[in-house]
Amino acid sequence: MTLILSNADVENLLTMPECIDVLDEAYVELAEGRGISRTRSDSLTPTIRPDALYGLKSMDGVSPKLGVSAVRINSDILTWPKQGDSMRRVKVPSAPNGRYVGLVLLFSTHTGEPLAIFPDGVMQHIRVGATNGLGVKYLARQDAKVLGMLGSGWQAETQLTAACAVRRIDSIRCFSPNKANRDAFAAKMSRVLGVEVVPVDQPEQAVVGADIVMCASNTIDNIFFERWMAPGMHVSAIKRPEIETAALKRADRLIIHTNDGTPTHILTKDLVVPEKTKGKGWSVAEEIDFKALPTLPQLIAGKTAGRTADDQVTCFVNNLGLGYQFAAAGAVVYRKAKEAGAGTELPTDWFTEDVHP
Amino acid sequence: MTLILSNADVENLLTMPECIDVLDEAYVELAEGRGISRTRSDSLTPTIRPDALYGLKSMDGVSPKLGVSAVRINSDILTWPKQGDSMRRVKVPSAPNGRYVGLVLLFSTHTGEPLAIFPDGVMQHIRVGATNGLGVKYLARQDAKVLGMLGSGWQAETQLTAACAVRRIDSIRCFSPNKANRDAFAAKMSRVLGVEVVPVDQPEQAVVGADIVMCASNTIDNIFFERWMAPGMHVSAIKRPEIETAALKRADRLIIHTNDGTPTHILTKDLVVPEKTKGKGWSVAEEIDFKALPTLPQLIAGKTAGRTADDQVTCFVNNLGLGYQFAAAGAVVYRKAKEAGAGTELPTDWFTEDVHP
Repeated sequence: MTLILSNADVENLLTMPECIDVLDEAYVELAEGRGISRTRSDSLTPTIRPDALYGLKSMDGVSPKLGVSAVRINSDILTWPKQGDSMRRVKVPSAPNGRYVGLVLLFSTHTGEPLAIFPDGVMQHIRVGATNGLGVKYLARQDAKVLGMLGSGWQAETQLTAACAVRRIDSIRCFSPNKANRDAFAAKMSRVLGVEVVPVDQPEQAVVGADIVMCASNTIDNIFFERWMAPGMHVSAIKRPEIETAALKRADRLIIHTNDGTPTHILTKDLVVPEKTKGKGWSVAEEIDFKALPTLPQLIAGKTAGRTADDQVTCFVNNLGLGYQFAAAGAVVYRKAKEAGAGTELPTDWFTEDVHP
Repeated sequence: MTLILSNADVENLLTMPECIDVLDEAYVELAEGRGISRTRSDSLTPTIRPDALYGLKSMDGVSPKLGVSAVRINSDILTWPKQGDSMRRVKVPSAPNGRYVGLVLLFSTHTGEPLAIFPDGVMQHIRVGATNGLGVKYLARQDAKVLGMLGSGWQAETQLTAACAVRRIDSIRCFSPNKANRDAFAAKMSRVLGVEVVPVDQPEQAVVGADIVMCASNTIDNIFFERWMAPGMHVSAIKRPEIETAALKRADRLIIHTNDGTPTHILTKDLVVPEKTKGKGWSVAEEIDFKALPTLPQLIAGKTAGRTADDQVTCFVNNLGLGYQFAAAGAVVYRKAKEAGAGTELPTDWFTEDVHP
């Protein structure tokens, strides 16, 4: 039988510590070239809505050790609304009932069979958190206790959860530009984590004295600056432009998630993609040769050094997601779903064939 | 609702003329850069069976004009058995009930929603046939009547069906190395097409006097040679090595399916892929700059010349399949399935989400 799982199933089945653990284990395979991640491709075309574009995104991953492969697909209606001087990329939930479209298909590398199909949303959140959580685990000081969070959206939630899973955090301060958002975030996360999260009015108030600073924003601008760096600090970003170039350069150790390549962008002719014409923020990346930087899998596998002294400043940039993460996290979800009898079983024959393809 | 279709549904819904017509129409979009094909990627790793490899193959396509996108996925257990001096790539149907695993997921470019999921096998056969059928349509002489077929497998069936859909073929001769196979093929296709198919003992008997020669083999060796070429002939191949390099060079017009790029092969470290170590046959490609050759979409869109005289020799090489073909053919299948009430409806909510991915 092939399992159809929901986001609720994935949320029930995959805890942050489990996701961190499976990536921790699996990344050794990846670092040694025994796992595969096929870099994301983004295909962009017009759609019927003139102010939007259609985007088909896919990425693949194979973990022979865990016996699974995964294809993650996103089928998005995209807009780029302006907010003052800034521009944000916004997915418009346009499928029936106002929903987003993201799917993970999980296959067995032993038999080829489709094991499970489930929406990508919850796993996407958890795996981004888990990735930066591993950055904290391998780079932050062992005694790190004070955490500054820049951002208060869903990414900030999983970032914080992941950090608290790998370090004994006892003080959290959160800044984001919108007071109502950061207040709500602080209240919710204080309850969830059992650690007081204090909302603050200025980013400096979150950052000064922090052992760990986590950026989890939805802007494409710098939000963490070199002047805020202090000895012993670990700075974490969920995308490249969040940390100012000067700060990245000053770090004693700068580790990125992956250098497996840049996403393949395929556009129809003459298509104008708003964020591409802006450029701001992304220029950060060009001053540093990201491809030459050591990666998280290399760090986990002991192929590159992490923090070697308590007064060093470390940085981790989650520069790109990997299809491989969905295979690894998917293996956990599938195993636990089978154990728990979760999900809807459909005949595997529906998704296989006797005709030679 | 999202439709789950079977190979039987696709076979009932998609005729060869319809597949030829939709590609004929859609390829203009592709030639003009308004459609997208994301080149196939093949990820290869070990599997539990020591004499086999696991392969995860994916390709994407978007047709804004038809309002659909497609992702085609194959999850294969692969072996390379030897047959005398030759080596064949054989997919082992290892999923439950001894089945293959190939899927097409069809999405709307208007809403992003998943429209349908179906096995790829039947569509795969029809689209390869339709592609070479378009080669015949645009390159063979208008009065072409005599067809020589080299091959008697399933590819040969759809190749023949496609040729008969675009030209008034009244004489067919078929050669393949195994007498029982070619006899059975001839009997079956005579019945299906209403045109007598004569099995012959030597390839020359199939080729001499033919207006159209179609190669549809499963070897990686040359099977059509320059010495067999005659004025006015059209020669068609379903993969590059089938036609001898000297023959490709002698053709007055040589058109390939696509120059969208070569597949991305991603292998785990130190993996030995038997066919890569062989090399024979594939060396054909290197003597000709395939990337510089005109393509079928360009030919259909009138951006490159086809046959300009009846005594010219033309060649078409179906060098690579495109994800875009599954989008275009998928649009037809989906429309007809909805009209016919075919397939199994599942709630679209199962494959969409309210969580932001």
